[in-house]
Amino acid sequence: MSTRTLRGIGASPGISIGPAHHYMGHKLIISRRENANPQVEKERLEAALLQGKQEIHELALQAQGSVGAREAEIFEAHEMFLSDPDLLEHVHEMIEQQINADYSWQEATKQYAAQMRAIEDPYLSARATDLEDVAQRILRILQGEQEQKPHITEPVILIAPDLTPSETVTFDSQKIRAFCIAEGGPTSHVAILAKALGIPAVTGLGQAIDQLREGAQVIVDGTAGEIFLDPDTATLTDYEQRAQTLARTNKDAFASAQQPARTADDHLIEVGANVGAPEQVEEALRQGADSIGLLRTEFLFLERDSAPSEQEQYTIYRDIFQAMQQRPVVIRTFDIGGDKPAPYLEMAKEMNPFLGIRGARLALKHPPLFQSQLCALLRAGEGHRLRIMFPMVSTREEIKALQEQVKQAQATLEARKASYAREVEIGIMIEVPSAALMSDVLAPLVDFFSIGTNDLTQYVLASDRTNATVAYLADALHPAVLRLIRMVSDAAHAHGKWVGLCGELAGNPLATPVLLGLGLDEFSMTPGTIPLVKQRLRHYSTTQARDIALHALDLHDANEVHAYLASL
Amino acid sequence: MSTRTLRGIGASPGISIGPAHHYMGHKLIISRRENANPQVEKERLEAALLQGKQEIHELALQAQGSVGAREAEIFEAHEMFLSDPDLLEHVHEMIEQQINADYSWQEATKQYAAQMRAIEDPYLSARATDLEDVAQRILRILQGEQEQKPHITEPVILIAPDLTPSETVTFDSQKIRAFCIAEGGPTSHVAILAKALGIPAVTGLGQAIDQLREGAQVIVDGTAGEIFLDPDTATLTDYEQRAQTLARTNKDAFASAQQPARTADDHLIEVGANVGAPEQVEEALRQGADSIGLLRTEFLFLERDSAPSEQEQYTIYRDIFQAMQQRPVVIRTFDIGGDKPAPYLEMAKEMNPFLGIRGARLALKHPPLFQSQLCALLRAGEGHRLRIMFPMVSTREEIKALQEQVKQAQATLEARKASYAREVEIGIMIEVPSAALMSDVLAPLVDFFSIGTNDLTQYVLASDRTNATVAYLADALHPAVLRLIRMVSDAAHAHGKWVGLCGELAGNPLATPVLLGLGLDEFSMTPGTIPLVKQRLRHYSTTQARDIALHALDLHDANEVHAYLASL
Repeated sequence: MSTRTLRGIGASPGISIGPAHHYMGHKLIISRRENANPQVEKERLEAALLQGKQEIHELALQAQGSVGAREAEIFEAHEMFLSDPDLLEHVHEMIEQQINADYSWQEATKQYAAQMRAIEDPYLSARATDLEDVAQRILRILQGEQEQKPHITEPVILIAPDLTPSETVTFDSQKIRAFCIAEGGPTSHVAILAKALGIPAVTGLGQAIDQLREGAQVIVDGTAGEIFLDPDTATLTDYEQRAQTLARTNKDAFASAQQPARTADDHLIEVGANVGAPEQVEEALRQGADSIGLLRTEFLFLERDSAPSEQEQYTIYRDIFQAMQQRPVVIRTFDIGGDKPAPYLEMAKEMNPFLGIRGARLALKHPPLFQSQLCALLRAGEGHRLRIMFPMVSTREEIKALQEQVKQAQATLEARKASYAREVEIGIMIEVPSAALMSDVLAPLVDFFSIGTNDLTQYVLASDRTNATVAYLADALHPAVLRLIRMVSDAAHAHGKWVGLCGELAGNPLATPVLLGLGLDEFSMTPGTIPLVKQRLRHYSTTQARDIALHALDLHDANEVHAYLASL
Repeated sequence: MSTRTLRGIGASPGISIGPAHHYMGHKLIISRRENANPQVEKERLEAALLQGKQEIHELALQAQGSVGAREAEIFEAHEMFLSDPDLLEHVHEMIEQQINADYSWQEATKQYAAQMRAIEDPYLSARATDLEDVAQRILRILQGEQEQKPHITEPVILIAPDLTPSETVTFDSQKIRAFCIAEGGPTSHVAILAKALGIPAVTGLGQAIDQLREGAQVIVDGTAGEIFLDPDTATLTDYEQRAQTLARTNKDAFASAQQPARTADDHLIEVGANVGAPEQVEEALRQGADSIGLLRTEFLFLERDSAPSEQEQYTIYRDIFQAMQQRPVVIRTFDIGGDKPAPYLEMAKEMNPFLGIRGARLALKHPPLFQSQLCALLRAGEGHRLRIMFPMVSTREEIKALQEQVKQAQATLEARKASYAREVEIGIMIEVPSAALMSDVLAPLVDFFSIGTNDLTQYVLASDRTNATVAYLADALHPAVLRLIRMVSDAAHAHGKWVGLCGELAGNPLATPVLLGLGLDEFSMTPGTIPLVKQRLRHYSTTQARDIALHALDLHDANEVHAYLASL
């Protein structure tokens, strides 16, 4: 047999080789019993919920150790379902009709999940999957079954239609060489957890997983999103060597991660971390972050019934600045949109939320909330290197309005006689194509640009990157995106401003030389990728990189760019 | 009092001045009666439905005369509801429970409309409004009331929260100087009908309409989307003069519409019509179209249960070619997407349909359907000037795949020994930013470009133009869009290809000099705007226009461009 290639979405990078193993989680289905004693059933349920909470708590602790604090938060959502008053009331009502607790729980959670799915919102739909995960756990406990650790004796390439977060983290990570998943996109739970576990993963494979015969040898390239089935000897040797080189490189890279990234011709490039929660700061420093290049502040604003107070925000920002000491911290103001609910803001359901009221557009519509964040930032940043960054800026008028908001916050703090950061850099994300195309006009108004390639790419290619059927088009290495990056970089430098990049592309080692060559002064990325990218930066001179960039800019499509960069 | 300005969406161009008049349509609400004779009630209902159909038919005829055939089609949808078997079965079921026909009809249509709304799809939501419109008509007939023509004695500026299509066309158009509507976007029914009636309209005004006091003098600028309340004398005089000039210009323009558009320095510019249904071809010719610059073929594919056959398509395309004789016809292959249902194609519900599977992406996923269209086009175009255009192209790979599809259709026709057009121009829409940015790479592969500024603008500004809250950002005159148009125009000419523009911008007389100056060879627009744009083209030399374009390209935002062009 000759090598066959299956293509999916590269959800977690790296190369693995091993035998295919199909995993089918088993699902309990309970039948209805109509003569149960309500009191007994309620007590059984309560005991099961209690045990469920303990199990989830242990799982979260285990996940925190193996995959990190942020990822462990996935399980907090699970715990919350077990205390949801609406859900529990519904279950109790059924139990009071003498229906057994198991069936009542099964049906109530099923309805609840269906309701969340009916809204056809990807966020709620992911929550529905969470609920189903936790629902099965309680059913299992009610049935008196022990939690079964998946029994895998030797390291395998794990193939599954989909995996719940519980399943993903309960596998013995030593026994999983890679995940190949039919469902899911690059931002699914499996993708997040696999990345955190450092296990390569390819998702969005659809029915193609059926071609992977049990036990057949498989190569998984989680970086390229490719799977090779029945590889011939040449392919196999090639990938074995690549995997070895990768392992060695990763080890070397981590050893030098705390050193700054100086190019071969001694240009210092700032390598920062993208951070989405305070707990991740420590990991960022451990991986060698020179700065925080993107602190997402949504964790403070989402999944709560009321807005965070200025003081609550201040305390959290302050802790982050103290951990970072004199390292710069770019804090992005809240980037909420129609796709993520914040119940205390009135947000209309939009047909195309990615083309709707998000980021700075939303902030400018809610001045009091925006002011509370700006005041908290200015106060917390005092004595530190505060950089405030605005998301989803599309026009010059918006920058003017945003600057007015900063002035107003400063005036408020003056009036309060509060102490606050007098020196602050103000920058914008470049993620709307108009901002990139007008960067020469916008540069004089700001202190820095940070290019958000994830959103920029989806607008430039008109492809929702969370939509698996068009995700193949949303390739940040498409020459159209590279051309805009150059435009932005040239405009920033012409006005003496610095320019960074905080999209996923920054953490892709394949892209390092081309991004360096396009003139970026700063790269910000998931902490785990910092060591490797720093090492890549040390490997090139800026002149070499410029030649590479010029060559890439002249290529015709994303495939040509990938092939060229892979050939370097 | 000094002049106050309200801003909305310019939904139908032109200037009007007059007294504000608030219109509140009255809504019938029927109560339930439980002892009705089912047989009698069914007969009453049947008679009412029959009369309703007649009324709608007359309304459609009247609309056809006053607003045109395409707009009259809105009422076809109304007629269809009156024969909907599901709906009628539901009503009959209630009647059989001895409930009066009026209440049964009211409740059944209410539920039906609510179901359509629940899906939160703007298309279905517009259909729900249609249903409510027709439901009221039947209720009125059942109640024995005559259709009341809105009683307006003198010409007014009509203010309303919203208007149904029936309401919009039953007004005496002589008595309506302008519409000011709280709801709606630039593509709402009111907008379509007002444009067809030639009445200025501003929509999306929200609660601001409450500021317009009954009888107060109001200036409506439907082009700019502005309303001036209590205008001072200077403003009033200014707008009175503008309105007069406009009227005179329109008359002159129509008189010379059949002449070609030659610039002052004798460059011939092709001015084509955007056409969405065969019945509109006649109107296009009457307005002086040199060509069809955009034939939308969706009318053949939407709102039906099965795909149109090749023969059905052939017959319709053939008629259009025959009407157009040797004038060129650009036919765009079907541009269907997740936001418009075609039940016979499996289309997933998408979170952001505008960033999903649409246009060429969808066509390439459905080769048999695409082949039937290509074969029909090639056959029908024989002996005529056929130009095939592909929508939503984002990458070079897609063009290659589309060209393969054309070759395959040609091979099929060869094998069938069918006669077909040997000479055909193949072009692409430039509406995805990546296609504009890569136009130098794409130009050698095609015969022409046609820039679709509606979609291009919404991607460049990341603003859904059907979303009223961000529509203000989606301004096609934003310098970012103009810069891309220049890029595309330069790339086309460098490779000896022609470039046109078929977005709404083409029909905006304000934009004519800047578009001419950017080097467009062809403009295609709603037929009604052809005469005026032709006249504007004759007014400028290409060198004057180039200077205007260069100035506009250096401006900082859309407001500056509008102000500059208005000052010319």
